[in-house]
Amino acid sequence: MSSLTTTHPAKGLEGVVATTSSICYIDGEQGVLAYRGIDIHELADNANFEETCHLLWFGKLPTRNELKDLRERLARERQLDPAIVNLLRTAPKHITPMDVLRTAVSALSFYDPDQKSNDHEANIRKAIRLTSQIAMIVAAYDRIRKGGNVVEPDRSLSHSANFLLLLNGERPSETAERALDIALILHADHELNASTFAARVTAATLSDMHSAITSAIGALKGPLHGGANEAVFLMLQEIDKKGVDPVEYVRGQLAQKKKISGFGHRVYHTEDPRATHLRRMSRDLGNTSGQGKWFEMSSRIEQFVKSEKKLNANVDFYSASTYHTLGIDVDLFTPVFAVSRISGWTAHVIEQLDDNRLIRPRADYVGPSYPQH
Amino acid sequence: MSSLTTTHPAKGLEGVVATTSSICYIDGEQGVLAYRGIDIHELADNANFEETCHLLWFGKLPTRNELKDLRERLARERQLDPAIVNLLRTAPKHITPMDVLRTAVSALSFYDPDQKSNDHEANIRKAIRLTSQIAMIVAAYDRIRKGGNVVEPDRSLSHSANFLLLLNGERPSETAERALDIALILHADHELNASTFAARVTAATLSDMHSAITSAIGALKGPLHGGANEAVFLMLQEIDKKGVDPVEYVRGQLAQKKKISGFGHRVYHTEDPRATHLRRMSRDLGNTSGQGKWFEMSSRIEQFVKSEKKLNANVDFYSASTYHTLGIDVDLFTPVFAVSRISGWTAHVIEQLDDNRLIRPRADYVGPSYPQH
Repeated sequence: MSSLTTTHPAKGLEGVVATTSSICYIDGEQGVLAYRGIDIHELADNANFEETCHLLWFGKLPTRNELKDLRERLARERQLDPAIVNLLRTAPKHITPMDVLRTAVSALSFYDPDQKSNDHEANIRKAIRLTSQIAMIVAAYDRIRKGGNVVEPDRSLSHSANFLLLLNGERPSETAERALDIALILHADHELNASTFAARVTAATLSDMHSAITSAIGALKGPLHGGANEAVFLMLQEIDKKGVDPVEYVRGQLAQKKKISGFGHRVYHTEDPRATHLRRMSRDLGNTSGQGKWFEMSSRIEQFVKSEKKLNANVDFYSASTYHTLGIDVDLFTPVFAVSRISGWTAHVIEQLDDNRLIRPRADYVGPSYPQH
Repeated sequence: MSSLTTTHPAKGLEGVVATTSSICYIDGEQGVLAYRGIDIHELADNANFEETCHLLWFGKLPTRNELKDLRERLARERQLDPAIVNLLRTAPKHITPMDVLRTAVSALSFYDPDQKSNDHEANIRKAIRLTSQIAMIVAAYDRIRKGGNVVEPDRSLSHSANFLLLLNGERPSETAERALDIALILHADHELNASTFAARVTAATLSDMHSAITSAIGALKGPLHGGANEAVFLMLQEIDKKGVDPVEYVRGQLAQKKKISGFGHRVYHTEDPRATHLRRMSRDLGNTSGQGKWFEMSSRIEQFVKSEKKLNANVDFYSASTYHTLGIDVDLFTPVFAVSRISGWTAHVIEQLDDNRLIRPRADYVGPSYPQH
């Protein structure tokens, strides 16, 4: 192919730099993750999700007044058009929540007051709106499919507390609110992960925010991306149900050449810095809720896989037991990932559009030979 | 960034080979396009859209019996769940058809009998189903928004003739049927164009066909991709309305440093081989319909831009006048592109899943410096 500048296919684009970005710094060797130059450990220890959103969207942590303003803007957007609620009500009850979320977010574009605008400020407004609306959709669909009522939002609550209220019908404890908030901070961004990259590829045709986020949700749905913590919990559940020793179970799986979900990462070659916080949350929530068994099982599996396969637990491994202990159904783990990652997705779409170039790689043709004339 | 194998960002991934593929061969220097080793000129002259679908999905042109079988399978799928038609009816009437199409295709996943399956055969069935259903959605929404009735499909007709029947409420002439069929063949695939790449990025997390196609539709919506022929026609319409000389109009636009849509291509550095056929179709349809002015205008602009800017007309330039002469509204040009490209998108998703690897590039971090500890 004469017009290509490189001819060696980079399968999966592993190690290929697709763009510059000011949003997320990852050092896979040192186990460092930072948003806009601020270390994830500092954010997990000292910030809340709204501050993290401000950091991602505006490039810096907010002042007290800026935080108040953003919290108010997010709270004002806690509303869904009745047509969206109707879409959730009429979706067949057996449907994967991610299919419903993808469809509902695509339909949100019908009712967005900035639908025709794709400029920076309009996209900031859409980012705020989508962050509020995605949390509402996830919670409302879970209530609807279980035959419950859709809970009215409380605009005085934080984003995390309001989400847990909408999901469970009652105000969460401070511990639960903080645990979810930390989980949302930890999942908010991760550079060019597959869903964020799908969002940027879509946006780069100068399409729009809703198209880009719909693509991201579709990509996040896949078990190689958002589905991993779901697989982790299904494994824990099976071990629990069978009453077997977790280490023996995992040893058996490895002997059958089966992959253990929640370990290893394409980018991190040391501990995933997010795992550190999720491990602690899983332990603390287990202790306070009387459901310590999930953490204990997880911890023994982690030590075994580490010594046996030299693989580190990743962000998904301890989020499984954490989410379960927070009362989140296993098939909502990936939607809750979207409730967080919408902050990073929207920041990346805005960055892409601020200095856009169509993303269009080439393929190395290996099919039937083209007839020579 | 120590873990990267390349550090020079390939902005827009231009010239980067992202995968091997057996579907589409492009030689941008020689102006060659071939699907599965068969030249686009041969297909445009001798094949129909159903044969092209068979070629893309199964890797070879069909025998007479295989073609009969595929035509029957496509015809059997000419049905939409009433919930999808209801979604089209309840969408606000001012919405861009691409937003409606993206949402409706996402919702099709709710009703797909293979919803839980992601294997090769299930995805072939989804490809056939989506090819029939996307054509029906585009036509039905256009009827509904204009206050018309949804037309019953005719299972004895070809894909192209049935689409024109559903759109216009009457059987098309043989000339119109063949013109649309050639347009669908020419647009069916184009290697890793942005929408196909979005579909593959989404599928590569082991997500599903509907998620991947929803991403593709979102990407196609952007004016740097599917929107270009729409921009071409709006220009022709403005020239016609103002009664100005087309060459003077374009000269004025170029003097103001404005870009003329429908010229140049990232991949082709010579004539886009698809433009050859669309130019002829635009001319022939103009002659037989008494609407020759659109072709004449286009032809004069093409010659001027070629001599002035050394840019060749691309696939979009003559599809504008062709589609208009076929009675297709300007904001349906991009949806009609999807009616064709669904064949290539689905072929690429199936190829991706047959030998999958997560598509996850890296970014070169240029943001605030990460604090050293």
